[in-house]
Amino acid sequence: MNTADLGLPVAVPSTALFTDQYELTMLQAALRSGTGDRRSVFEVFTRRLPEGRRYGVVGGTGRVLDAVENFRFDETILGFLRERGILDEPTLEWLADYRFRGDIWGYPEGEVYFPGSPVMRVEGTFAEAVLLETVILSILNHDSAVAAAASRMSVAAGDRPLMEMGARRTHELSAVAASRAAYVGGFHTTSDLAAGFRYNIPTVGTSAHAFTLLHDTERDAFTAQVETLGSGTTLLVDTFDVTEAVRTAVEVAGPGLGAVRIDSGDLLLIAHRVRHQLDELGAGKTRIVVTSDLDEYAIASLAAAPVDAYGVGTQVVTGSGHPTCSMVYKLVARADGEEPGTPLRPVAKKSMGAKTSHGGRKWAARRVDEDGVAVAEVIGTGPVPAELADRQLLVPLVSAGKVVAREPLDAARDRHIAARDRLPLSATQLSRGEPVLPTEYV
Amino acid sequence: MNTADLGLPVAVPSTALFTDQYELTMLQAALRSGTGDRRSVFEVFTRRLPEGRRYGVVGGTGRVLDAVENFRFDETILGFLRERGILDEPTLEWLADYRFRGDIWGYPEGEVYFPGSPVMRVEGTFAEAVLLETVILSILNHDSAVAAAASRMSVAAGDRPLMEMGARRTHELSAVAASRAAYVGGFHTTSDLAAGFRYNIPTVGTSAHAFTLLHDTERDAFTAQVETLGSGTTLLVDTFDVTEAVRTAVEVAGPGLGAVRIDSGDLLLIAHRVRHQLDELGAGKTRIVVTSDLDEYAIASLAAAPVDAYGVGTQVVTGSGHPTCSMVYKLVARADGEEPGTPLRPVAKKSMGAKTSHGGRKWAARRVDEDGVAVAEVIGTGPVPAELADRQLLVPLVSAGKVVAREPLDAARDRHIAARDRLPLSATQLSRGEPVLPTEYV
Repeated sequence: MNTADLGLPVAVPSTALFTDQYELTMLQAALRSGTGDRRSVFEVFTRRLPEGRRYGVVGGTGRVLDAVENFRFDETILGFLRERGILDEPTLEWLADYRFRGDIWGYPEGEVYFPGSPVMRVEGTFAEAVLLETVILSILNHDSAVAAAASRMSVAAGDRPLMEMGARRTHELSAVAASRAAYVGGFHTTSDLAAGFRYNIPTVGTSAHAFTLLHDTERDAFTAQVETLGSGTTLLVDTFDVTEAVRTAVEVAGPGLGAVRIDSGDLLLIAHRVRHQLDELGAGKTRIVVTSDLDEYAIASLAAAPVDAYGVGTQVVTGSGHPTCSMVYKLVARADGEEPGTPLRPVAKKSMGAKTSHGGRKWAARRVDEDGVAVAEVIGTGPVPAELADRQLLVPLVSAGKVVAREPLDAARDRHIAARDRLPLSATQLSRGEPVLPTEYV
Repeated sequence: MNTADLGLPVAVPSTALFTDQYELTMLQAALRSGTGDRRSVFEVFTRRLPEGRRYGVVGGTGRVLDAVENFRFDETILGFLRERGILDEPTLEWLADYRFRGDIWGYPEGEVYFPGSPVMRVEGTFAEAVLLETVILSILNHDSAVAAAASRMSVAAGDRPLMEMGARRTHELSAVAASRAAYVGGFHTTSDLAAGFRYNIPTVGTSAHAFTLLHDTERDAFTAQVETLGSGTTLLVDTFDVTEAVRTAVEVAGPGLGAVRIDSGDLLLIAHRVRHQLDELGAGKTRIVVTSDLDEYAIASLAAAPVDAYGVGTQVVTGSGHPTCSMVYKLVARADGEEPGTPLRPVAKKSMGAKTSHGGRKWAARRVDEDGVAVAEVIGTGPVPAELADRQLLVPLVSAGKVVAREPLDAARDRHIAARDRLPLSATQLSRGEPVLPTEYV
C-alpha cells in the first residue's frame, strides 16, 4: 500500500531518502565484503527517560509500518545517488530491487516503556535491516516524545477535554504527526485540518483576536461569528475587556452560547470571574475554554478552576521540554557467517563511556503483582520464564515483509490509557522522579 | 510552480490543509459579514528571544514562498471540508478559486532579528491573508529555531566544518527542513539524503558501530570499508579500544586514511591522544571527527583540542533547548470599510497580560555606528527617517501574488554570516544575555 492510498495530504512516493548517507555506504561495504547477508537483529531502545519522567509512551508505530512499506528506491532516487557518486553500480542495482523482507516486532503503539525496553526489534539480513535505521528512529523519537508529553497533560486534565493546537509551533508535517501522537497520549481533538484529514482525528476551532480586531466593534465580530457558526460557537473574550466581552457575548448569542475562550492573563482568577458572570447572566451551560502556553503543570494548577476544556499548543508538540526521546537502533546479534541458519551471536559496543548496551536478541515482559499492578520491566535473552509467558510486550508488526499489525488509531489510544492505569500510582505524579518501574535483566 | 517541480522527495499537492480550523471558520464569518474584503496587514514577530539568546536568525523564508504558491483547495480538500461540515457552500466555492493575490514583505532569509522585528508582513484582504497564518508560522517558528541554534554552533566551531546529523532525532520531514535551516545558520554538510536531494546540500557519512560489530574483527570491518570507499573514508574507532582501533585503521588504510571518528568518552582527552598516535603513525593528515550529543557549549569546549570537524545531531535539529521561536501572526492594521482605497487603521489587542502588541503597518531598519556596527533595531509606523532609508530590512517577497524573491540557499547562508558579522562583538558570546540590539519604536 502506498501512503497516498491512505489519503495523506502529502503524497510520499518513497521514504527511502529519509536516511543518513552512512546507512547506504555501510550497505555497499557489506555487500562487497559478503557480510551484508548475515542475519542480523537490531533493537530500538533508550538508555534513559528524559530527566524526571516516570514512564515513556510508544508513539509512531503505525507510521513506522507505512514508512517501511514505502521504503523503495525508484529511478529518480537511484539517479540522484548515482549522480552524486555516493554508491557504486552493484549497490544501486541491489537497491532497485529492495524491499524489506524481514520481520519486525515491537511494543504496540500506546504501550508504556522504560529504560532498556526493546520497543522495536528488526530482524533480517544486515543489508536489508541497516537501511531502516534513520527513518524508524525519526518517527519513534518524534512521536514518542509528543505522546509522552500528551499523556502527562491528559493525567493533569482528568476528565476535561484536551485540544491540540500546536501546528503553528512546529514544522508543518511534524504538526500532523504530533496531532496523531497527542491523540494516542490522550488528547481528544486537534485544530490541525491535515491531521483531521489524514488520521480522522476530530477537528475543532475557536476564533482569533484578529477576527475581533477586523470588525468595528467587538459586538460586530461576535454577531458575525454567531450568525454563521451558530450560538454553539466559542467566542474569544480577551481582546479588550473580558467582563464587557462576556456580557456582549451572551447578549449576542443568548444564554445558549457554546463557550468562551480566555487566552491571556491569570487564567485561574479570570476563569472564576467569568464563570460567576456567565452564571449570573443565565449562561450556566456556556463552557470556558482556556489556552495560553499551557503545559501539564499549568493544566494541573487549573484543576480547581471552573474550566471546561484546555487548548494546548507549543508544549505538547515540542514534548514539554523534551522534543526527542534519545532512542537508538543497535545491532544486538548477528550470524557468524552468511549461510542461512547460521546461529546468532550477541554483539555490543564495548568501549568506554555511557554508550555500552546489552547484546542479544531480547524479549520483554511486564511483571505484575497480585492486584495486576506492574512492578517491573523484565528483559531477557534466554527462554522466557513461565510466569511471564503471557506478559510479553513485543508483538509481531511485520512478518516476512508483510505488515501484520495495522490498527485504528483509537486502539493505540485505548491501549495507552489501559497501560498507564496499570502502572503504580506514582507514575502519574507530575513531579520529577525516577522511572516508576525498575528494569531487570535476566 | 508546484513544489514537485523543485524535486521534493515528498510531493505536496497543496499546503492548504496545514491550517488550523479556525482560520477557515473566521473566513466564513468574515465573508458572510462582508468584512472579509477589508484590506488587512498581518505581521509576524516575536515578543522575546528564547531566554538568554542574543539574536534570532530568520529561517524558512524560501519554504514560506513555496507554501504560499501551493496553497490551493482542490476537490479532495474541499470534499473533506464539506463532508465534515466545517464550512458552508459559499465559503467552499470561494476557496475553490483561492490563490493569494496580495503582497508579502519580509526580512530576507538568514537575516538576524530581535524582539518586535516584523520579520514578515502579509498584506491583502482579510480573507486571503488570514488563511496563511498557520503554515507561515509553522515554517518560520521551526526553521528559525534551528537556524539560530546552528548559528551559535557555527560561531563556536570557528573555521572547523559542521556536519548536521540529526535526522534520526526529529520528524523525518522536519529533518529535511532542519538540514536546510542548519545550512543557513552556517553548517557545511548534512547526513540526510533527502536534504541533499531536495536542497542540494552536500551530504556526508561515516560508519556506525553496527558495521564493526557485523564483522568478525574490527580489522575485517575496516578492510571492508576501505576496499569499497577508499582510504579517504572515515573509520569509526570507538567500538572496542580506541588505541588499538587507530593502529588497525592506519595499518589497513595506510597513512593516507581520511579521518577517524570518535563518538563517545571524554572527547577532549581522546582527541589529544588520537592526534598524537596518528602523528606517530605517520598519519599526520588524517583528520579527527567528533560526534556525541554535541551542542554549542561542547563544541566551544573542544576549541583547543585537535579536532577537525564536528558532527551535530539532536541539539541542532531541536534548536538547542529552544525548538520553536514563539513567533506570532497578528493583524496590525485594516481598512475601516470594504471599498478598495479605504485608509488603514492600526489595531492591536488591548487586554491585560503580556500579549499586547504594537498596532500599525511597520517598517524596520538597523541603525549602525560610524564603523558599520549595528547599534539598534528601529521599528516605526510613520515615515522612515532619511538616515535609515537605506538601512531598511523588509524586502518584497511576493508582489500581487507572484513570488519575487526566490534565491539560492547559499545566498541566505552568506547573508546570515554577513549580518552576524555586523553585530556588536558580544552577539557571539555563548553565555546567556540580553538581545544584543535594543528595539526602538519611533
